[in-house]
Amino acid sequence: MKIRCFATPNDLLPGDLDGAAAIVIDTLRMTSVAAAAMSNGCAGLLACATVEAAREAAQARGALLGGERNALRIDGFDFSNSPLEYTREAIGGKRLVMTTTNGTRAIAACAPARRLLLAALVNVAAVAAVCKKEDYVAIVCAGTAGAFTLEDALTAGALSLCLNGDEKDDAAIAFETLWLAARDDLPRALSATRHYNRLLSLGFQPDLDFCLTPNRLSAACERAEDGWFYRI
Amino acid sequence: MKIRCFATPNDLLPGDLDGAAAIVIDTLRMTSVAAAAMSNGCAGLLACATVEAAREAAQARGALLGGERNALRIDGFDFSNSPLEYTREAIGGKRLVMTTTNGTRAIAACAPARRLLLAALVNVAAVAAVCKKEDYVAIVCAGTAGAFTLEDALTAGALSLCLNGDEKDDAAIAFETLWLAARDDLPRALSATRHYNRLLSLGFQPDLDFCLTPNRLSAACERAEDGWFYRI
Repeated sequence: MKIRCFATPNDLLPGDLDGAAAIVIDTLRMTSVAAAAMSNGCAGLLACATVEAAREAAQARGALLGGERNALRIDGFDFSNSPLEYTREAIGGKRLVMTTTNGTRAIAACAPARRLLLAALVNVAAVAAVCKKEDYVAIVCAGTAGAFTLEDALTAGALSLCLNGDEKDDAAIAFETLWLAARDDLPRALSATRHYNRLLSLGFQPDLDFCLTPNRLSAACERAEDGWFYRI
Repeated sequence: MKIRCFATPNDLLPGDLDGAAAIVIDTLRMTSVAAAAMSNGCAGLLACATVEAAREAAQARGALLGGERNALRIDGFDFSNSPLEYTREAIGGKRLVMTTTNGTRAIAACAPARRLLLAALVNVAAVAAVCKKEDYVAIVCAGTAGAFTLEDALTAGALSLCLNGDEKDDAAIAFETLWLAARDDLPRALSATRHYNRLLSLGFQPDLDFCLTPNRLSAACERAEDGWFYRI
């Protein structure tokens, strides 16, 4: 298996997703939300680029609405971007339409890939397990506002290690090194980073605790032909 | 001092270079060549995007020609992209026009910066020394064919540590971590990486030995108003 990592969707060049199983990572917090929702019985997830598109899609399918702008709940939405809100009581058996600042943009950028999955630190092993037979996996970090963000690089490194490919690009090698250097104390590794500190300052410590616990969940989800993500 | 790192020129977003002292890194091998040439008395260096533009600029200024395509010497050029060729006998007192695959592209992308310098592992301390009073330093890795390349991230990390800024973005934090994990055995850290192995397979072990010795040179160079780089 060949593994390549991309620090942001901007790093994707023409052809980079040809034949790929693409895995989008937005550790803080969208793909953690996806893993939490799927673990708790969510019947399907759609990512929309704009609030308006999300509202329309949710109305058309009787879905609930989740996501954020500036890290906070969008007016009239059922959920914010906190994975802790997506309990079995709230999301079990329901469809979910999401729009977030970075995650949905990365998902859109990966639309041309042959397979498209979502991963977070909470479920890297589960996602790796359903990609074991792939020839080429492209791990695409959402980043923050178009820039490299460390928590996504760490998740990408953890995922790359789980996949155990025999051919890795420089970014995969680097992100594995970063993960190995950080995994014993993630809060310390992230203590000076931007997005982590912004969420801390907004009072999201419980979200950070949740999102930074590796493999607490066993649910993975993948895009189907209708463009929605379903648990696999 | 604020420090930001960019893994490739593609990562630069509008405004990222506003007010910046930009430092371009192409460890293997263009900015190592620049450091070697300046150390040996080169009278000025110009980076051109195309072979044709390089030939014209060299002719206009009576300059020598250096660079590569596919890592090899360009037909009719005086030097390849090997820093070992740029001896005092060969380059002392002479102007040099270069064109390379990744380095010159990164330099062009950083043209809007307020200051523009070149750095390689062989001279990170010297470059850091002439940027000590900057408020904002943008370290831009050339990468290889538009992709993240580990040796440039390591050099960026070493440079960021030398600069000792009080505000660093996630990429600077990550690259410093990579450097600290790699510095005691750079060949081992790079043993599975792409560009390093390509140069090895082409017989460039002496170049790699040269380029991967930190701070063996004390020359730094900076772009002047005429667009040429001069030793400072």
